[in-house]
Amino acid sequence: MRTQVCIIGGGPSGLLLSQLLHNAGIDTVVLERQTRDYVLSRIRAGVLEWGSVEMLRKAGVGARMDKEGFVHGGTYLAARNRGFRVAFDELVGKQVMVYGQTEVTRDLYAARDKAGGVVIHEAAGVKPHGLETDKPYVTYLKDGKVHRIDCDFVAGCDGFHGPCRKEIPADVLREYERVYPFGWLGILSETPPVSHELIYANHERGFALCSMRNANLSRYYVQCPLTDSVDQWSDQAFWDELRRRIPADAAESLVTGPSIEKSIAPLRSFVAEPMRWGRLFLVGDAAHIVPPTGAKGLNLAIGDVHYLHEGLIQYYQGDNEGVQKYSERALARVWKSERFSWSLTTMLHRFPNQSAFEQRMQEAELDYLETSAAAQRVMAENYVGLPY
Amino acid sequence: MRTQVCIIGGGPSGLLLSQLLHNAGIDTVVLERQTRDYVLSRIRAGVLEWGSVEMLRKAGVGARMDKEGFVHGGTYLAARNRGFRVAFDELVGKQVMVYGQTEVTRDLYAARDKAGGVVIHEAAGVKPHGLETDKPYVTYLKDGKVHRIDCDFVAGCDGFHGPCRKEIPADVLREYERVYPFGWLGILSETPPVSHELIYANHERGFALCSMRNANLSRYYVQCPLTDSVDQWSDQAFWDELRRRIPADAAESLVTGPSIEKSIAPLRSFVAEPMRWGRLFLVGDAAHIVPPTGAKGLNLAIGDVHYLHEGLIQYYQGDNEGVQKYSERALARVWKSERFSWSLTTMLHRFPNQSAFEQRMQEAELDYLETSAAAQRVMAENYVGLPY
Repeated sequence: MRTQVCIIGGGPSGLLLSQLLHNAGIDTVVLERQTRDYVLSRIRAGVLEWGSVEMLRKAGVGARMDKEGFVHGGTYLAARNRGFRVAFDELVGKQVMVYGQTEVTRDLYAARDKAGGVVIHEAAGVKPHGLETDKPYVTYLKDGKVHRIDCDFVAGCDGFHGPCRKEIPADVLREYERVYPFGWLGILSETPPVSHELIYANHERGFALCSMRNANLSRYYVQCPLTDSVDQWSDQAFWDELRRRIPADAAESLVTGPSIEKSIAPLRSFVAEPMRWGRLFLVGDAAHIVPPTGAKGLNLAIGDVHYLHEGLIQYYQGDNEGVQKYSERALARVWKSERFSWSLTTMLHRFPNQSAFEQRMQEAELDYLETSAAAQRVMAENYVGLPY
Repeated sequence: MRTQVCIIGGGPSGLLLSQLLHNAGIDTVVLERQTRDYVLSRIRAGVLEWGSVEMLRKAGVGARMDKEGFVHGGTYLAARNRGFRVAFDELVGKQVMVYGQTEVTRDLYAARDKAGGVVIHEAAGVKPHGLETDKPYVTYLKDGKVHRIDCDFVAGCDGFHGPCRKEIPADVLREYERVYPFGWLGILSETPPVSHELIYANHERGFALCSMRNANLSRYYVQCPLTDSVDQWSDQAFWDELRRRIPADAAESLVTGPSIEKSIAPLRSFVAEPMRWGRLFLVGDAAHIVPPTGAKGLNLAIGDVHYLHEGLIQYYQGDNEGVQKYSERALARVWKSERFSWSLTTMLHRFPNQSAFEQRMQEAELDYLETSAAAQRVMAENYVGLPY
């Protein structure tokens, strides 16, 4: 088989890239290791930057998001049992959209199907070849046979554990990492969200987050030790702990119910450089991970897709610059989002062996944020998304 | 002897408090452990927040500062051999004044002398008593005799090592501290400053700062290990190291000369709470220390003097509130300045065992600061001084 761009990974970034290139008349094939049902069962983030919203609209997959998503003009921060709101719309004239990653992926599959896009599921042992030549190709195993796709470019949208990053030689690849000494215990419950906007809470017992997917689907998190297991946390224990960490008025009005999902996720900051190697591009989690605080993961991937689809469209119009500069352009924005996610994580979590001075610095950051319009603007412009 | 407010410490905060209270008809005595010559030989910071400028003018000691000081509308930040300017005046409509702490102290002594103020030098073994009663008093030893000063209040302007903080019972006093794992090697030289404004430089070899006192008196610093001693650093070695760390254009135009002072200072963040105990008030370094990055030390002390002189004037007009709330009001601002000094120090210095990710976070902070007006406004409003 031959295509112009072989996309490895059928998550939202791979599908979005495929759709945007299709709209520009560029042929793609998407290879996905899992089944479609598996991909659509993954529960991920739910807050879209405004630039992400516009990218999805541009790709022609924004209709359901615009109908069912919730536009949030701000968020709440809480500490020491008091809270304040950061009003994104008033501060920087932009908002965010609450719409689950799973729904984004579903809309993208519908669009690819409608356009007759080729998405090959259960492709095992995917491996790119000839990335330093003009004629790269990708091999994979399916139905007991080895298949080969010849292409002009390979897009590695294959996540942190995918095969693409490993193709960059060790003497070229530089990796930067911070592993945080705690996790997030999260639950999904079919209850109305406690607040119409998100609440980020700094508490002496640890961070807590009140989020949501829709009017009857709440997503809550509490910081927990990495040594905890889900079995240790009954629903009751989770709700009790959440109530302790959020402001009293929120705790009082919290509606609880059985969890329909419960999991513990570690927190990590990670960046791989460069994001282009010959004819290979890394996109999203394949190149960078952020801790979930501030919900930048999917948004960063969409940012990468922005730079990459522009570069590829230019390439097929005869201009090589966007392809050549993909890594540089994407990384400039990636590092700024990494900075924001790291600083928000650092400000809001309780760290093991945190000194009393460091705790006071967290409180001072929150006090300053509460009282300074300039500081709120910094938070707002990062939260709604820095420009591409 | 009897006075209304006994001020322990004849540095700038004690003298300024004395002068402001005198102007309001309140009687003070200042006790200083050292000679006046010793106090005036200490070389300290040289950047005044605009609120500090206005406080000195209000005290009637601003004339020489306004004539000889240098108003700076911005500062330069440098990293990876490039620099950018943060324009305080354009961003927040305020500036800073470069005028050495030694000169401020000299002006204050002149004003106290002119007004016939009592400043007792070489007062040894100063000790406050009866701080929880309505009739506190202070004893000290001079010329072989014990003296006693009865008063209404005691102001502890006696620095980090002074006796006043120690009077607060251990079960009341809370101390917060961070000691940084490096020092600043500073020199003073009679050379024209390399830049008309300050340059703060983040470099892989360590932080450097180009500052000044006047048109022919430069103050330069390089970060150094705490184990270094001044003897290890010849003038030539200092200039060579400074040149390596500052942008190429600055390095080329740097005018060097013999140092007239050379010293290594450790960096520390420290806060003691509360800042009032009965009839005792802690002011400036007696209650808090900041690392020198951002030059907040003297300015924080002047902020304390602001709250305290207002509280004392109100007290003698029959209103107790400002005295009662002194600690709370001063500390709210202290913690914000501690936050700023800590974050600027953290962004600009090289830390032992700093990970590659942490170094990238510093670079991302500087890149973000270079490109975001909101981030520059945060820096500017802190640098020129948050409102009282």
